[in-house]
Amino acid sequence: MGEKITYKIMKNIEELTESLIEFRDARDWEQFHNPKDVALSMVLEAGEVMEHFQWKNKEEVEQYVKTHKDDIGEELADVFNWVLILSHDLGIDILEASQKKIEKNAIKYPIEKAKGIHKKYTEL
Amino acid sequence: MGEKITYKIMKNIEELTESLIEFRDARDWEQFHNPKDVALSMVLEAGEVMEHFQWKNKEEVEQYVKTHKDDIGEELADVFNWVLILSHDLGIDILEASQKKIEKNAIKYPIEKAKGIHKKYTEL
Amino acid sequence: MGEKITYKIMKNIEELTESLIEFRDARDWEQFHNPKDVALSMVLEAGEVMEHFQWKNKEEVEQYVKTHKDDIGEELADVFNWVLILSHDLGIDILEASQKKIEKNAIKYPIEKAKGIHKKYTEL
Amino acid sequence: MGEKITYKIMKNIEELTESLIEFRDARDWEQFHNPKDVALSMVLEAGEVMEHFQWKNKEEVEQYVKTHKDDIGEELADVFNWVLILSHDLGIDILEASQKKIEKNAIKYPIEKAKGIHKKYTEL
Repeated sequence: MGEKITYKIMKNIEELTESLIEFRDARDWEQFHNPKDVALSMVLEAGEVMEHFQWKNKEEVEQYVKTHKDDIGEELADVFNWVLILSHDLGIDILEASQKKIEKNAIKYPIEKAKGIHKKYTEL
Repeated sequence: MGEKITYKIMKNIEELTESLIEFRDARDWEQFHNPKDVALSMVLEAGEVMEHFQWKNKEEVEQYVKTHKDDIGEELADVFNWVLILSHDLGIDILEASQKKIEKNAIKYPIEKAKGIHKKYTEL
Repeated sequence: MGEKITYKIMKNIEELTESLIEFRDARDWEQFHNPKDVALSMVLEAGEVMEHFQWKNKEEVEQYVKTHKDDIGEELADVFNWVLILSHDLGIDILEASQKKIEKNAIKYPIEKAKGIHKKYTEL
Repeated sequence: MGEKITYKIMKNIEELTESLIEFRDARDWEQFHNPKDVALSMVLEAGEVMEHFQWKNKEEVEQYVKTHKDDIGEELADVFNWVLILSHDLGIDILEASQKKIEKNAIKYPIEKAKGIHKKYTEL
């Protein structure tokens, strides 16, 4: 049995979220997906992305990413998928939240003050 | 001067990514956005999401998320935005990577074996 | 030839730190041990400790720790060793720093206010 | 009332652990200190150490650590203290675990193979 095979290309966040929830429901995993464990999983997957760059200097990172795009993409997809799942479960519109945060950061980091500087807004 | 104010609602990942890169370019921050530091930032922001649930048991988490959706959404947007930036910088199509990962996980976690069980695929 | 085998039991932080630095020097790894990568490694190892508890509820954690003490101890030792290395490299007396932090926390979390409550000191 | 003030310098891990547990018991916090939340806290504190180095290149890190030893030491002490608490709670002898891990790593990373190379042992 299992899931039916589809060849559809998913084109947006809504379709991917739906697919993630279908995947979960088919495995009866909603019971494990409390926000705390989902956030914990997101942290671990973000760590796996970061691990790709461990011990590498600037030049080594530059070389590395050229030949490991798929590997990094796979870990990054894990982070992305947990973000979609948590957004879904908490009823967060992540596109809206993302846009709001960009707008908020534009105020926290005015171009005149922040240009070319990597300090935190509290130290600008 | 600063950035022009817009009232446009961004409706998809492409528009948000474009907006994030515009934000960055306006501040001349591309110089800081090497993949290692971006991944590090993504880990820290994922940690900030997780921090919301620190020391809380199941019931406390359930209560908490009802009244802190916006706060959590804001931190989650930070993670999401770093995912978009890193995807952009490395030339990763995150929608495609996400779908591929779901398909890969469907093979790693067959419904028959994984149903109702939270073990890692290596232990199923 | 490799390192000489010893059967000495190390009894304190100073001896362990010395041993860690010897290990590193024998491999010419000091060149990689900049504070940023050491901190990054410490985060990843702390994540590996946390991963032991992923998806497990309170009762499952209680059962798990009974039979996985050595596995968890091994990951915890990684975190501990990175703390010793970073302390060494930055000239931090970690025993003193630890004591100072306990004393500082005693002021931040007065018994009268904090007893039985898991809030952050800023919310007490 | 609160805790009695002492001027004793704690000289080793056993004394610090004892002090940490006294601190906890005085606040009736053992109820919150399950291994999962303690590990989660350790990850967050390790993140705070790492945050000190965010966006800084090699030279900036070198400059920064010269003038921020106490700040970094304070965060590092947090990680250290969580390691001691978790070791205590799980009955792990952290000094022994640390030594064992050094010995295990000496086998995983033989000097002849690992000298001057930052690869993982699986890739040596």
